[in-house]
Amino acid sequence: MSKWIYFFEEGRSKDKHLLGGKGANLAEMSHLGLPVPAGFTITTQSCIHYLEEPDFFTSHLQEEILKAVSELELKTGRSFMNKEGLPLLVSVRSGAEVSMPGMMDTILNLGLNDERVKDLAELTNRHFAYDCYRRLLQMFADVVYGLAKERFDEQLDQAQKENGKPVQDFSQLEQEALVESYKKVYQSCRKSFPQDPADQLFAAVKAVFASWNNPRAKIYRQLNAISDKLGTAVNVQMMVFGNSDEESGTGVVFTRNPAKGQKELFGEFLLNAQGEDVVAGIRTPEPIQALAQHLPKAYQDFKDYAQILERHYRDMQDIEFTIERGQLFILQTREGKRTAQAALQIALDLVEEGLISQEEALLRINPKLVDQLIHPVFEPESLESAQPIAQGLPASPGAAWGKLVFTAQDAKRYHEEGQKVILVRQETSPEDIEGMIVSQAIVTSHGGMTSHAAVVARGMGTCCVAGCSDLSIKEEEKIVHYGKKSLKEGDIISVDGSSGKIYLGALPTSLIEKNENLEQVLLWADQHAQLEVRANAETIPDLRTAIKFSAKGIGLARTEHMFFGKARILEMRRLILADQEADRKEALVKLLTFQAEDFYQMFKEVGDRPLVIRLLDPPLHEFLPKEDVEIEEVAQELGKSPSLIRERIKQLVETNPMLGHRGCRLGISQPAIYQMQVEAVISSAIRLQQKGLAIKPEIMIPLIAEKKELDYLRALLEDHISHIFKKYSAQAFPYEIGTMIELPRACLIADQLAQAADFFSFGTNDLTQMTYGFSRDDIGKFINHYKNKEIISFDPFQTLDKEGVGELMRLAVEKARRIKPQLAIGVCGEVGGDPASISFLEEIGVDYVSCSPYRIPAARLAVAQASLLKKLEQERHQA
Amino acid sequence: MSKWIYFFEEGRSKDKHLLGGKGANLAEMSHLGLPVPAGFTITTQSCIHYLEEPDFFTSHLQEEILKAVSELELKTGRSFMNKEGLPLLVSVRSGAEVSMPGMMDTILNLGLNDERVKDLAELTNRHFAYDCYRRLLQMFADVVYGLAKERFDEQLDQAQKENGKPVQDFSQLEQEALVESYKKVYQSCRKSFPQDPADQLFAAVKAVFASWNNPRAKIYRQLNAISDKLGTAVNVQMMVFGNSDEESGTGVVFTRNPAKGQKELFGEFLLNAQGEDVVAGIRTPEPIQALAQHLPKAYQDFKDYAQILERHYRDMQDIEFTIERGQLFILQTREGKRTAQAALQIALDLVEEGLISQEEALLRINPKLVDQLIHPVFEPESLESAQPIAQGLPASPGAAWGKLVFTAQDAKRYHEEGQKVILVRQETSPEDIEGMIVSQAIVTSHGGMTSHAAVVARGMGTCCVAGCSDLSIKEEEKIVHYGKKSLKEGDIISVDGSSGKIYLGALPTSLIEKNENLEQVLLWADQHAQLEVRANAETIPDLRTAIKFSAKGIGLARTEHMFFGKARILEMRRLILADQEADRKEALVKLLTFQAEDFYQMFKEVGDRPLVIRLLDPPLHEFLPKEDVEIEEVAQELGKSPSLIRERIKQLVETNPMLGHRGCRLGISQPAIYQMQVEAVISSAIRLQQKGLAIKPEIMIPLIAEKKELDYLRALLEDHISHIFKKYSAQAFPYEIGTMIELPRACLIADQLAQAADFFSFGTNDLTQMTYGFSRDDIGKFINHYKNKEIISFDPFQTLDKEGVGELMRLAVEKARRIKPQLAIGVCGEVGGDPASISFLEEIGVDYVSCSPYRIPAARLAVAQASLLKKLEQERHQA
Repeated sequence: MSKWIYFFEEGRSKDKHLLGGKGANLAEMSHLGLPVPAGFTITTQSCIHYLEEPDFFTSHLQEEILKAVSELELKTGRSFMNKEGLPLLVSVRSGAEVSMPGMMDTILNLGLNDERVKDLAELTNRHFAYDCYRRLLQMFADVVYGLAKERFDEQLDQAQKENGKPVQDFSQLEQEALVESYKKVYQSCRKSFPQDPADQLFAAVKAVFASWNNPRAKIYRQLNAISDKLGTAVNVQMMVFGNSDEESGTGVVFTRNPAKGQKELFGEFLLNAQGEDVVAGIRTPEPIQALAQHLPKAYQDFKDYAQILERHYRDMQDIEFTIERGQLFILQTREGKRTAQAALQIALDLVEEGLISQEEALLRINPKLVDQLIHPVFEPESLESAQPIAQGLPASPGAAWGKLVFTAQDAKRYHEEGQKVILVRQETSPEDIEGMIVSQAIVTSHGGMTSHAAVVARGMGTCCVAGCSDLSIKEEEKIVHYGKKSLKEGDIISVDGSSGKIYLGALPTSLIEKNENLEQVLLWADQHAQLEVRANAETIPDLRTAIKFSAKGIGLARTEHMFFGKARILEMRRLILADQEADRKEALVKLLTFQAEDFYQMFKEVGDRPLVIRLLDPPLHEFLPKEDVEIEEVAQELGKSPSLIRERIKQLVETNPMLGHRGCRLGISQPAIYQMQVEAVISSAIRLQQKGLAIKPEIMIPLIAEKKELDYLRALLEDHISHIFKKYSAQAFPYEIGTMIELPRACLIADQLAQAADFFSFGTNDLTQMTYGFSRDDIGKFINHYKNKEIISFDPFQTLDKEGVGELMRLAVEKARRIKPQLAIGVCGEVGGDPASISFLEEIGVDYVSCSPYRIPAARLAVAQASLLKKLEQERHQA
Repeated sequence: MSKWIYFFEEGRSKDKHLLGGKGANLAEMSHLGLPVPAGFTITTQSCIHYLEEPDFFTSHLQEEILKAVSELELKTGRSFMNKEGLPLLVSVRSGAEVSMPGMMDTILNLGLNDERVKDLAELTNRHFAYDCYRRLLQMFADVVYGLAKERFDEQLDQAQKENGKPVQDFSQLEQEALVESYKKVYQSCRKSFPQDPADQLFAAVKAVFASWNNPRAKIYRQLNAISDKLGTAVNVQMMVFGNSDEESGTGVVFTRNPAKGQKELFGEFLLNAQGEDVVAGIRTPEPIQALAQHLPKAYQDFKDYAQILERHYRDMQDIEFTIERGQLFILQTREGKRTAQAALQIALDLVEEGLISQEEALLRINPKLVDQLIHPVFEPESLESAQPIAQGLPASPGAAWGKLVFTAQDAKRYHEEGQKVILVRQETSPEDIEGMIVSQAIVTSHGGMTSHAAVVARGMGTCCVAGCSDLSIKEEEKIVHYGKKSLKEGDIISVDGSSGKIYLGALPTSLIEKNENLEQVLLWADQHAQLEVRANAETIPDLRTAIKFSAKGIGLARTEHMFFGKARILEMRRLILADQEADRKEALVKLLTFQAEDFYQMFKEVGDRPLVIRLLDPPLHEFLPKEDVEIEEVAQELGKSPSLIRERIKQLVETNPMLGHRGCRLGISQPAIYQMQVEAVISSAIRLQQKGLAIKPEIMIPLIAEKKELDYLRALLEDHISHIFKKYSAQAFPYEIGTMIELPRACLIADQLAQAADFFSFGTNDLTQMTYGFSRDDIGKFINHYKNKEIISFDPFQTLDKEGVGELMRLAVEKARRIKPQLAIGVCGEVGGDPASISFLEEIGVDYVSCSPYRIPAARLAVAQASLLKKLEQERHQA
């Protein structure tokens, strides 16, 4: 015969499948000998049986429950079924293997009835006792009969009105009358509240079972791929009351300081109080250390148990306890939430104390926390009273305040006057770059996590909130509306790039400049890492940041960003608008001079680390002016007619630029641009070679869909490079030509591409756009509907979509390695810096990830975690 | 010891790998006993050996060649090496296994020298002999020494100028002097022309071998994935001369009439002439039947040989022959090119004659030809003298002439006056639809094979040339420029939608109204077909066409096209622009009425055939007005301010609409639209059910990327449908909800989607766009560069890209069938009607293809061919 019910002391934490998460946790604490209020768990299997065959309840379960209750009465010395003795009240809680919203969760105080409530009133106090009873009546009606809770609240309101006083002050008779009015709600629906505690319990257990199949729970399981066959367990546990007398109390304590990480108990308690009183804030709790004076025995017990729990779980714990008439009960323990700083301190301390290994410490630190340690944050106190005025996407972490400006020009002007500025725009474009550099933070109303503003800000480590559609920004009028209010140029705001929130006024920030704990952890991390971490960077400051954060090289240097300086964009425009060969040549020569100097400086900065240079990617129309004023200006500078420029702009317009004439398609239709870029790369490497620094340039071709594109460009560039060596009378040196893998088709023909490429680099941003058919620029139009309806649970531009995009990448790696087992394969999209994606990237066999410089510390940790997890997985297989 | 040389009579057509294509064909004819001029083939293996080890030529091949030449002298009774006897001249031709441009191809008249030319002059005539010799000198210089041909042409021009007469009239001395001047060109490069025929031959063979590795040939092989290890064979064949005397001659003959298909010899000949004379058109050739009078023996021989060849190859042949002094030689035979009409007639006749089976007949007819039989064509004679003024993409087959108009309104106006019109626009939009319907043909300067104009025109069977960038169309000025000329409204042009060419004036057209041969062939085809052919259609005329062409159902009815009528688009705009719930509801109610009537008529038309209705797909901004005038108009009609409409248009603008807020994304963000559409579908089915016609509606959801999208919409629609059944007090009946598979991600998660879908339909148009990262609207900006540089060899929007898009589809079918083996899977993109793609679609296990109505006949044939090829393949495996 199967066993349908387990007392807490019979289980362990590994029995989640049978006892549910909550039951297994209570069992584990009981097993450790902790004073957990006694109770038992009705198994998930019982639930499944009952749902398949309702007769099972009366034929099997009912008797077992009664037996368990009798045993509980014996254990506790209290009485649930009979009127004699101390009353035993119980809580009934659902608890599935996987935590799951949408199910019925809790009925408290089960066992109370018209008589028992009086016993409880004597034990505690009248208000509390009747409050418990009313809550039972209300919860029971909701859970068992589906009666709306509001109907009972109405009764309470009415009684308070009629009696002319708050419920705390009701007399015994008034309390009883209120209970009667609650029962009338039952009667109006032809139901009644069972006075027999056993009937209460049976009905509650059945209701919890049934809630497994309520529509919300079913949808949740469907959306989260949880089997309908798991069922939920039901926990029946004795209630304890911290408000019994002055030797009772309740509290919440962390075993270490969750803000800084020191090894000390940290928390609060209230005497003669229930858990809710601590939360309600009517009385001021005392620090836990004060308990030593009031109840020395309970305090000592708690300290001992806290240590047991910390040693058992080998981590800082967040513990809830209740003291009933001097006796301590532990109600719950869980891993304590902590700040980034505390997380590092605790992990390092636990290693030193010998509780955990270096590897475990590394696995425990959430890489996202690392971001907080390298960017400023608002001081927690200042946030407590601040109300955000708008909420956007947390596009680049950090916190800052400054004066609001609407244009890059204004940003520069204020900055020159020594003022801090926040640049607020509908969206930014490459021409705003100088204004962005001098801003404390950047806010946009349009664009997503991978918009221009977001990408550039992360690159610079500048705080950014993107896609903040709460703001209606009128750049020309220099005004921004939010709700019914507005802000103008010069107003001060504070921006939290980690939460996406925007505040009025200046909130103070703090940053730990040198974090030795972090450096220690990252050094450990590097020892365990398999994947290399490189940076996406091209400006000298970015390259320096990357190297400071120990990037192993540069995985992506985007050459187009270099064409946006004032002198350069003019030459780029001259090139695009040229109608004579001479003009075209002149522009190319000037651009060559600029680019050669760029690459020379970059190579010098990066030294012998790898540096992958991507040839021009965006469509040419991105370089042309947009506004009338600008068109006139360019026309004058280039000696062309504005109408000719407008005509050319019109010719270049594309319906879907993302799918248009860009990347290698430009290289093929206008080979001179790629030839110029390659000459700049090779000639600057020659210059450095002559100074004794051997460079092996890596040239990367974007947007390849077809092997012949790569064949054609490779032949073109190789031919051109051999001319360059001759032209500069230089000894030829090795170089590599690789390709971005950023179109679904490139993944599917990766075996062919591997024949023609020296290396691969996945461009996960574009690959995600094409695989989903999502445009990053337009996704804002519907993505909120998707989030609200839980149609997507993560942003695939931030965290790799393993099922779709990831599957294509896996295919590509397999196909490519079949042809060239040693082919170097990197990832240079946004997900390259996302810890949640890195395990998968390691699993499919990528060699390195490349991310913006300020994401490198988190990526170094994530990469180590991925390796450690893989090692653990292998050990598990071998065992 | 290996055999390096084969005489023609030693080989067969199967020996292509060793003898090359040309050699094997000559061998086959010799084997049949046909009088092929004697000769031998030096094998491809000899070429490979020589290229690897040049000494091989002197050590092995040279001696073998000399032996073969001796044998050839014996066989022909002529002399190559010695001066005595009739001179034996030979041609030397390359011939690889696979036909391959870029290689050296031919040297004629080898064996001539300063002496031999005189013998030949006696045998034929002086001009011809010296002409042959000069050509030998020129070709030899080109092939063996790489000397430019033009340098010899200069000598000829100069000699004619100096002698003051054409070369035909040169005296013996003048001819000899000219030969000497040719030799001087050799000398100027320190080369000489070998007088010894054997030296000529050795040099020529080596040059042909070497040409295997010339850069153009290597690139061609690389682009076409042909192995470098195949090598080329060399054919050495006796020259024969049809201009030897009045009993000599030459001709080209088809064994059946290539225009109509009747069984009769069809061709021409010239007495005392060389092949070039026939082509040159100086003399008028006589019909082949006239040869019976001139040379009865040769005529009878030719008739016999023609019959042998036709029976041997079991197809109509195109035969070249030469008669030298009364003796007939067959120089070449190949399958004769024929018109569509002839192809059908010949195939049916050959079946009747017992020469081929029904299956073979079906396999022989190119499905593309079928298109010609259901659309008008220009009469071939009229095309001979016509010069096209522009060339675009052949977007929809057919031929038509009419008066040029620039707007849909003008098209309607001219049409109402009883005039034929050709609508010429930069590109068409859904609002042009009424003008398109009344036009004889449609021409656009922008857009590709799958642009709006192209798709709609194919749907209507109207001739269309798209993307004709030779035309610069100014719609507002009503003028179109081409080159330096222009056309205005009312000018007459002719448009060939099968070739993409546009002509001035009216060219006569013809169409066979009822083609019994075609009907016969398609009936046979249906008996062999595995895949079903359905139609993409939604208008009543299109549905009727589809049914007339025996479509098995409607695979795609696009509901958005129904919103473009004048009354409907107003309601659609009211819906989109509504700022009050009442407006929105009013619009939805009206749209519901329209759609319900649409579906009622459609179901009635289609009867019990399947009809798949796709819910709204395009982004909402497509329904809003664009021009100022129109905005004002709409504002007035809807009682809104124009600025509000402009504001809304601005809000809806997308950077990449193809990747934007459309398809199921609209269904999720604005469920009311899909609910309205589903109500229209179900309520009209209820109406028909009440009249005794049982309908099983199939509802298709577009642009699914994620299972939860489908889950959400399916639940929403199922719920709504059960309300509809109640609302209309109708008995519920079965319906299906399926999904388009048109995003790469949908293919990758097809197993998940199969759980939630009743059927799949691949949308290959969008799938191709996303897989390549190509926008159909923008591809014109670079596609010509790709074609010119041979980077793409086919249009993936017309012919399925098997390696990329097809691979995703194969994956999707496998994954889906693993979950639901019986899941119905169709293809409803453009490639669904493309014969070249259908075999692949059958191979991966698709159930049906769906194409525009006028492509159905070709698709029915293609589908049968795919099944037959599969059967043949299976038989080959079993054998």
